Order: sequence, then C-alpha cells, then structure tokens
Amino acid sequence: MAIITLTTDFGYKDPYVSALKGSIYSELDQALLVDISHQVTPFDTQECAYIVKNAFHYFPEGSIHLIGVDAEATPENQHLVVLLQGHYFIVANNGIIELLMGDQQPEKVYSVALPNAASLSFPEIHVLAKVACHLARGGTLEVIGKPFEGLKGTKDFEAHITDNGKKIQGSIEYIDNYGNIITNIDRHLFEAYRNGRDFEILIRDKKITEVYESYSGFVNFELEKSKRKGPGDFLALFNSAGVLEFAIYKSNAKTVGGARTLIGLKHRDPVTIIFN
Amino acid sequence: MAIITLTTDFGYKDPYVSALKGSIYSELDQALLVDISHQVTPFDTQECAYIVKNAFHYFPEGSIHLIGVDAEATPENQHLVVLLQGHYFIVANNGIIELLMGDQQPEKVYSVALPNAASLSFPEIHVLAKVACHLARGGTLEVIGKPFEGLKGTKDFEAHITDNGKKIQGSIEYIDNYGNIITNIDRHLFEAYRNGRDFEILIRDKKITEVYESYSGFVNFELEKSKRKGPGDFLALFNSAGVLEFAIYKSNAKTVGGARTLIGLKHRDPVTIIFN
Amino acid sequence: MAIITLTTDFGYKDPYVSALKGSIYSELDQALLVDISHQVTPFDTQECAYIVKNAFHYFPEGSIHLIGVDAEATPENQHLVVLLQGHYFIVANNGIIELLMGDQQPEKVYSVALPNAASLSFPEIHVLAKVACHLARGGTLEVIGKPFEGLKGTKDFEAHITDNGKKIQGSIEYIDNYGNIITNIDRHLFEAYRNGRDFEILIRDKKITEVYESYSGFVNFELEKSKRKGPGDFLALFNSAGVLEFAIYKSNAKTVGGARTLIGLKHRDPVTIIFN
Repeated sequence: MAIITLTTDFGYKDPYVSALKGSIYSELDQALLVDISHQVTPFDTQECAYIVKNAFHYFPEGSIHLIGVDAEATPENQHLVVLLQGHYFIVANNGIIELLMGDQQPEKVYSVALPNAASLSFPEIHVLAKVACHLARGGTLEVIGKPFEGLKGTKDFEAHITDNGKKIQGSIEYIDNYGNIITNIDRHLFEAYRNGRDFEILIRDKKITEVYESYSGFVNFELEKSKRKGPGDFLALFNSAGVLEFAIYKSNAKTVGGARTLIGLKHRDPVTIIFN
Repeated sequence: MAIITLTTDFGYKDPYVSALKGSIYSELDQALLVDISHQVTPFDTQECAYIVKNAFHYFPEGSIHLIGVDAEATPENQHLVVLLQGHYFIVANNGIIELLMGDQQPEKVYSVALPNAASLSFPEIHVLAKVACHLARGGTLEVIGKPFEGLKGTKDFEAHITDNGKKIQGSIEYIDNYGNIITNIDRHLFEAYRNGRDFEILIRDKKITEVYESYSGFVNFELEKSKRKGPGDFLALFNSAGVLEFAIYKSNAKTVGGARTLIGLKHRDPVTIIFN
Repeated sequence: MAIITLTTDFGYKDPYVSALKGSIYSELDQALLVDISHQVTPFDTQECAYIVKNAFHYFPEGSIHLIGVDAEATPENQHLVVLLQGHYFIVANNGIIELLMGDQQPEKVYSVALPNAASLSFPEIHVLAKVACHLARGGTLEVIGKPFEGLKGTKDFEAHITDNGKKIQGSIEYIDNYGNIITNIDRHLFEAYRNGRDFEILIRDKKITEVYESYSGFVNFELEKSKRKGPGDFLALFNSAGVLEFAIYKSNAKTVGGARTLIGLKHRDPVTIIFN
C-alpha cells in the first residue's frame, strides 16, 4: 500500500486537511495517509523544508510526499514532482525542494501539466492530490508532466569556516516544541575541523565547552542527586539528526521553562565555535 | 472499507479522541477513521456545521460522519442519523444538521433508540460510535431507530438582496487558519444579480472593486517584482467553495500578518456589495 | 492487524511524530497507528499517565502502547515493556507505568536490552518503536529483554477518608479542553462512605450538594427555558470514568467561559466532601 505523507500550513481546525484526505480516499481507497505536519507557519517555505527534511527519510523508499505550502501555481511557481533519494515530492517551485535537498542531486524533476483544474485556489486537492494518486497507483511521471530545469537555486544559510579554520560560523535553524535550539552546524563539519583542539561554543552570552551524545549525557549518575546537573540546566549535544543542538535538560515549560525562553534566542541568530 | 469521519470539540490533548477511536476499533477493525476536526470551539454548533459542510462532500458517498459537538442526549436534543446527499451524519438534534444542509432536503432522518448506554456523559462512545459501527457493517437505519420529524428548523444567516436588487447584504461566516475572511456570499448569487454592472464591495472601511479567481490572480506577473502587488496586499476572490473571501496575499503571520489582524473583523460582521 | 498507540510530548508541528510513524511503517506496513496524544506537557509524567490511563482500555486487548515522554534511557530510567490488563506498554521507568496502573498488578514487567541504538537522543525511534514492531509481529518479550523488578513505586495523590469517615479529602487530577475539572474522587469511594447521609462538596469558595449522572442532569426540562438552569451554570457529576468532575454547562470559551476560568482552580488543588 502506497504511503502518501501530507505537509501543509492548513492547521488542524479548518476543513482543509480532511477535504484533502477525503479527495484522496475518493480516488484511492488503499492509500496510507500520514500527516507530517499541518502547523507549518503559513507560507514559511524555510520552516516547511526543515520539517520535511527531518521526517521524510524515516519513511520507506517510494513514499510520496505532498507539500501544500505556498502551492498556488503561477508563472513563477510551477507544480513539480521531484524524485530524490527514492522519494517522490509533489511541491510548487518555491524553493522548498532545494532547501530540503541541500547538496543532494534529485534523480528526476518534472513539471506537472494536468488538464485544467476545477479551482485554482485549492491546488492541493485539484492538482497535488491528483498527482499523488497517479503515482500511488504506479503511474509514471512521463504521463503527467515533462522534465523541468527551472529550479530557482534557493540556498539556505549554511555553517561556514572562517579565520583560517579557527572558527565555525553557524546559525539557528529551528526551535522545537521543547524550546530546544537546533543549529545548522553538522557534527561532520565540526569533527573535520576540530583536529583534537579544545573549543568554545558561543551563543548569545553563553560559552559552552562540552558537547554530549544525548540529553542525559551531562548527568553524572554516580553522584548523589543533589550534586548532579539536572532539570533546568543548559547543555549542548549532537542530536539524532547529527547537528549541534542546545537544550534545557527536561525542559518542562510549566516548571523550568525551555531553552528558548531562558536565553531569548530566535531563528537565524548566530552560533560560533572557536577552536583554540 | 467504510470511512468514518470524526468531528468534535475534544481538542487533541485529552484522552477523548483516542478513547473514541479505540472504542470503534474494538468493534470494527476494518474501519478507516479520518479526523475532520477536533478543534471546534466547544459547543459552537455554527462553527461545527461550517467545518463539516466544507469537508464532507470531498469524501466518497456512503461515508459516515460522526459529529460529537453538543451531543449529550436530552428531551430536546435527540440523537439522529441523517442521510444527506448519500452521506450518513450521526449527530444530536441541536441545529448542526440543518446548518450544514442549507437548502438541501435530507433523504432520511431517523432518531436513534439504542438500549441503555453505559454512560450518559460520553455519548460519542456509548451511542454515536455504536451507530457508526452498525452502519459501517452495512446495518440499516430501521434496526437502530425510527423516522423522525422534529428537526428544529435552525437557519443560518444568509446573504440577501436589498434595495431592489442594488445591494447584496452578507456577513462573515468563518475566519480560517490564514486569517482569511470567508463570507456567506455565493458566486451564483453575485452573478445572478450583477447583470454586467460595476460593483463595490464594502467591508469595514475598505472598498473593493475587483474579485479574482485565485489568490495570485491579482498579481501581474508581467511587471517587475517591485512594481507588482504581492505579499501583504489585500484581495477578494471567489474561493474553492464558491463564496466570496478576503485574504492578505501570502499572509505569513510572522511577517505581514493575516487579513483578520489587518482589518479587525470577526464572525457575523457585515459585508455589502453595491451594484452601480 | 496490530494496533500501536502513540503518546508523546512532541507536539504536532515538529518532524518527530511523523519520523516515529515513518520508522514504524518502514518495518511494518500492516500496523494500525493511533495517536493518543502528542500534546502532553513536556516531561510531565503525571499528566501523561492520566491521559493514557483514560484512553488505553477503550482499545482491544493486545494493543501496544508506545509512550515517548521522558524516555531517554539512563542508569535510573530503563526502557520497559509492561503487560497490564492484556495491554502492552512500552515506556521508560520514570513512574508513568505505576501512575497509570494504580492498584492493579501488572502481568509482566521486562526491561529492554536491544543491541546498541543508532542514537541515544531519539529512543522513541531507535528503541521503543523497534520493540513495538517486534511485539506487533507476534514476537515474545523474552527475546528483547529480561524480567525486571525495579519499578520505583511512584504513587499519585489519592483521595482518602478523614475525621472517622466524616470527610473525603481529594484533589484535582486534570483540567480538560472544556475547562472541566476532574478530581481523584471515585464514585465507589463516595458511595461506600456515604451511607445515605447528606453531603457538601467544597471546592475553593463553592459549596455543592448535588452530583448528577450527566452534564444535562441538572436541567429540569419541564420548566420553561428562562426558568431552567442552563449554559454557564456550575455543576458536579460523576463522569464517564466514574470520578467526580466539575463543569460549567456548555462551557463555550467564547461565550460563558470554562469552569477553570470561573473559579480559578488548578492541578492538585484540594476538593473536600463532608458527610453530615
């Protein structure tokens, strides 16, 4: 059974998500629909790309990912199907696909040419869902479009090396439900330039000299509880996606608050690593 | 496999939605459950009807729609099953069904008479879900109830013609996740009375003289970007449901804000069209 | 088809819930995944236990309940599988399981010993989901762990009898989406000590002398509408879970507000019943 994931900025209250699902089930009763997120900030293509990039590869190859953010077709915003790492993405040409593919090259990029849609203002149903159903039934790209070469080359901020390899300059890419602060500094970049040197990580007025492998990594369980680091303390780790993240240990918003609250950071704020 | 949609005011945090789903799967492991919305404002039957009305017809005929809003049975609020346009609605007699059917006539209206429920205070599980499972297994209405003629005749505000056909007086029916403002003025009504005349649409202190077919319809893509209308600009369109809607183009709440914020409108505020 | 329920504090916006689902579907395309809640307050084990306790028993026996709250393994927080009332719970040893089982004894408690996980910081995917898939395929506990006897004995506040049976002293256990106030005072405890006596329930500055069987129970439908109790009035009932609950009748937050708002109560505040 084909998996179709859905990512939109529709929110969960309005009729739109279920209208989209109903229209797919009306064509295809054997589909398995899985929500990635419907709480993307409206029209925030960067945030959308971050969320999809960190979810899609957990799904089996051959999965079909419908992305309904900024999806109305215009002369500059064509509907595309992109095959990337064995996954199909159905998306408008608004930069999302390039942000989520990063340095990867897509296997195929097609623009969609369907007969006229019933409505221009709900393309998720009248175009994207129809393409998803076509692919889920085993249909080919060639039938619904043609090869496309007009990707816009949108690039996200990337961490980069400065001062002759003495510094890595990165930034905050996302802040999650826990208030955890996720950067664009990859563990491989860090390891490649570190060369066994000591380091300081600077974020706002904090200086950090240790990066852990898990949230609990900084807790010394051999000490008595009152002498340990614990809930409410600040730490850095390489998270499950392999990037540098800052967290407040067990950051229950009701009690100790989240890392975001404590240090007042936001998307795109700088994070610097200095090697000594 | 029968589709059962669920609409409630339970919210997504509490145990209630999953308790409802678990009780259905306990009876019926072949059901396909689809959430329409669980974020209806508690006891807001008008809002509930709006959401269901704009979602149900995307599902295949024969779908079963369980509506758990204001659903406790009382002498004045009987549990009903209504067959409308080939869809089953399981709902209390609180006006929701009339609001969502508008001018349509239902094919059948039955009141539900089940043996005593285990609890009066969770009718979604103890009555509505049992009826849904019965219908999903192919059961007939006759077995679980009897024909009912006591619908309350609840009517929603409707747009109407005034000043000898010179004006259409409507109002705001819903404000969505984008802050888009959806009215009760139907495109067919507008077209029927327009007769080729010019028009002005008045909403609060705004005057609009153009209605588009899509959100991007007002953008002239032949102009340079800096000279076009674009993100943050206000527009009117006939949306995918065929009614007049006001929007802020690409209204990212983080950046340009939504139409609601910009002009401070709310549910039931008036919208007037004047033909010249 | 095995049912796997999911309960986390991930929220619905981030990629985490769908990453978890994708990783399960990658192993097991015949699973039926059902969300219990992903809006548990981060790291709030008591709230998590309350939500799961009030949902799981609606699912069929044999269901598998994955609980991803405070789930990172540490020397003091082992990953467990607990068989309780025919249901499997996959959870960390952080007290949640004891809070949700109350006085029940589990049939089995196993600690999980899997070969090294790919990441320590996303145990829901790298450990808990793998255990869930193993159980869903009919695998045995013996293969993935060994009997465990180190539950921590965490106990929740319980209502208790004082003043030689003259009083029941309880507290507020949860406040739901309606603002309804749910206590830890069980109907059976109340009935066992009441012995036909009159009673007063004290909550903040309110005194209540009647408990109903449903939300509408306090409305006298034989009176004219204007003379009845109705929307906005305060009542007590034994709810569908069999515990004492306070509610504002038809508490639409837009209009009459919720019980929480009206009387300003919060989790753990005391509720006293005095028998006269």
